[in-house]
Amino acid sequence: MADKPLILITNDDSISAKGIASLVNAMSKLGEILVVAPDKPQSGMGHAITIHSPLRLMKSNQFQNIQSYTCSGTPVDCVKLAIYEILKRRPDLLVSGINHGSNASTNVLYSGTMSAAIEGAIEGIPSIGFSLLDHDADADFDAASEYAHTIAKGVLANKLQSGVCLNVNIPKGKKSELKGMKICRQGRAFWEDSFDKRKDPSGGDYYWLTGKFEATDKGEDTDMWALEHKFVSVVPTQFDMTAHHLISQLNEWNF
Amino acid sequence: MADKPLILITNDDSISAKGIASLVNAMSKLGEILVVAPDKPQSGMGHAITIHSPLRLMKSNQFQNIQSYTCSGTPVDCVKLAIYEILKRRPDLLVSGINHGSNASTNVLYSGTMSAAIEGAIEGIPSIGFSLLDHDADADFDAASEYAHTIAKGVLANKLQSGVCLNVNIPKGKKSELKGMKICRQGRAFWEDSFDKRKDPSGGDYYWLTGKFEATDKGEDTDMWALEHKFVSVVPTQFDMTAHHLISQLNEWNF
Repeated sequence: MADKPLILITNDDSISAKGIASLVNAMSKLGEILVVAPDKPQSGMGHAITIHSPLRLMKSNQFQNIQSYTCSGTPVDCVKLAIYEILKRRPDLLVSGINHGSNASTNVLYSGTMSAAIEGAIEGIPSIGFSLLDHDADADFDAASEYAHTIAKGVLANKLQSGVCLNVNIPKGKKSELKGMKICRQGRAFWEDSFDKRKDPSGGDYYWLTGKFEATDKGEDTDMWALEHKFVSVVPTQFDMTAHHLISQLNEWNF
Repeated sequence: MADKPLILITNDDSISAKGIASLVNAMSKLGEILVVAPDKPQSGMGHAITIHSPLRLMKSNQFQNIQSYTCSGTPVDCVKLAIYEILKRRPDLLVSGINHGSNASTNVLYSGTMSAAIEGAIEGIPSIGFSLLDHDADADFDAASEYAHTIAKGVLANKLQSGVCLNVNIPKGKKSELKGMKICRQGRAFWEDSFDKRKDPSGGDYYWLTGKFEATDKGEDTDMWALEHKFVSVVPTQFDMTAHHLISQLNEWNF
């Protein structure tokens, strides 16, 4: 057992989501598994951590013969609790997802799924976030799950460079409809937001965040292009956010 | 009035924090100001957005003669509400802070202050996050506030490249004790977390996240080095998280 890779699994759609069940299934042949996942949906939580309130951690029976816990906090809290409170040794791999919905392009920043993988990378653990381009709670995860298995196996065999994780997005559809994998860069896009303003029963205003995703990048090397053309997109993602190319330019500014 | 730059101000310590009052004061000579800030502390919220519950937006009287609102959500929610719900024209500058505590190095990822600035950059607005290395609610913001004024003036005059914002951290101390500004890269570090496990009155376990910040990077071009040597650190920060240097390497992997 000690020779089997130790795989930490989390997500942001909560331990009850179909996506994490598919991921547990895909990983079960690759190693020993620990699941630590949020006890409720935590989509859009980005890299949030819980510091103003305490956290709860509960043993779960969600998966047969697999050690699992729920956490009251964010996906990043789950990773921290798993590494520093539950596990006795470092995981060989961290996988997050499979998310119900895309985390391609700029969505990587808002995504709890990807933030969990980025936290893994900060901790020096080879990490991958998986997302399926289908928000449906009952989405078909068959193809996504096959790709997750293949890519996780590849990362275990090849080792990822320290400081980097993978952002993997899988188009909707049967395996036979997909064209394979493509290593990409993060496409440029933004949310053209709009707020759905409503009145509560007492006449007070409240707002629901909605929006339209606007791609501003037509590059054929982007994840957006790959997904539109039915490729699985794989973006090497780093947590060094320095715009290195601007350091010399800023040194010439007159402040 | 129409010629004056429009400056959007937010933070993550809430509208009542001393740091945002210092920032409002520092910006008041530079343009017309709108403040949209959280109604309660939102530290460590990273790039979280509120999608599972609605948002409240309230007019505030926090600052004399300055239009201000509180929002029930995260710092990124504040930016989105300001741009898409309140303002009639695009801001010329977004400033966030002044944060009570460091957002240097890897902290940029957890920081609500910096996520607000990064959201500004995604929206194409020149944006800066300011943080003072002092967690005290009554910290001395005099030097930080002077630097905020100087740097904001510089950004308004020079224009920042699209896709990039500035992460500015200011050491604790009087202006005369500081050695000036240094353009830096984000230093590598991680939180060696630990959880303070306690029993609630019913005997249930709960956990407080604590930790020790561990620098793994001794580079003299990092923000950590600059701050330790009493320089104000300025890191050009981008939201493209692609590890571009790894794209060709991953193309050679056998999946």
